Amino acid sequence: MDNELKMELKPIGLVNSPIREKPANGFNWREIVAEIVIRPELAEGLDGLADFSHIMVYWWMHQATDPAKMALKVYPRGRKELPPVGVFASRSPYRPNSIGRATVRLLERRDNILLVQGLDAIDGTPVLDIKPFIPGYDSPAEGASAPEWATRHQRQV
Amino acid sequence: MDNELKMELKPIGLVNSPIREKPANGFNWREIVAEIVIRPELAEGLDGLADFSHIMVYWWMHQATDPAKMALKVYPRGRKELPPVGVFASRSPYRPNSIGRATVRLLERRDNILLVQGLDAIDGTPVLDIKPFIPGYDSPAEGASAPEWATRHQRQV
Repeated sequence: MDNELKMELKPIGLVNSPIREKPANGFNWREIVAEIVIRPELAEGLDGLADFSHIMVYWWMHQATDPAKMALKVYPRGRKELPPVGVFASRSPYRPNSIGRATVRLLERRDNILLVQGLDAIDGTPVLDIKPFIPGYDSPAEGASAPEWATRHQRQV
Repeated sequence: MDNELKMELKPIGLVNSPIREKPANGFNWREIVAEIVIRPELAEGLDGLADFSHIMVYWWMHQATDPAKMALKVYPRGRKELPPVGVFASRSPYRPNSIGRATVRLLERRDNILLVQGLDAIDGTPVLDIKPFIPGYDSPAEGASAPEWATRHQRQV
C-alpha cells in the first residue's frame, strides 16, 4: 500500500444550517432547509446543477475526528438493544476517514449558494464535493435490500 | 473559512480489478467484478455488511489529481457536441477534491476482502470508505430527475 500518497482535502464551501449541533438520535432531517455556500471563485462549477432534482453532498465531519472515539464495532444508529455491527456496515460519523454524505433535494441555486432540503450536516461543516444524483447509476436499477434496523424510521429525502 | 482545519485521508484498502487503466468513454463497468482488499487490521469493521445487497464505495482518484487538468467547466461525459457544464454538475474525475464514489452490488465478503460488481475504479485505487446503501435515504423516495445527457446509456448497477 502506497503510504507516500498524499491525500489532502480542501473545503470548497461551508454549510449554513439552522441546526448548530448534532441532535439526539431520531431527529428528522428530512424537512430541514439549509444553504451550501460555495467559495465564490468556484461558483461557475455549479452551472447546470439546477437541471438535477437531487444532488449528493460530501463533507468533512469535523466534529467526529477524535481517533479515540473510532471503534471497529458500533451499535447501529446508537441503538444499544441491537447487536453491534462493523463501522463500515454503519453510518457512524466516527470512521477512519471522516467523510459524510447525503443525497438531498436541490431547491434553488443562486450564484455560489445552493438551497437544499434534507442535509444532515450541522452549521459550519466544511463541504468537500458536490455531485449530481444520477438515477440508475447512483441508485441500483434493480432495487436494493438492507436489514430492518437500517431502514426503520428512515430519514427520507 | 477555516483554512487551518487539517483534512488528511488515509487509505483503508485498495481496489484489485481486472481493469488497469481508465478505458475510453462509453465503457460498460456494469458487469465488471472486482475485489476491495481492506487492511487486515480493519477487517472487523466489515461485520454485518453482507446483510446489505449494495454498498457505496469511496476512493481517491489518484490518477486525476493534476491541478492543471482541473477546469470549472467540462464537457458532460466528454461529449464535445454538448454544451459544457460546471464540474459539480458533472462526474468528471478532475475536481477540487479527488473523491470518487460508486454504488455497487456486494457479491461476497471474505474476511478482509469484498467481492463487488460494477465498481468503476481501476486496479490499485486507494479506497477511503465503505458505507452501506440504505434505500430511501441514499436514493430519493419520491424519485429523481436528471438531464438527458446524464442518464443516456447509463452504467447501471
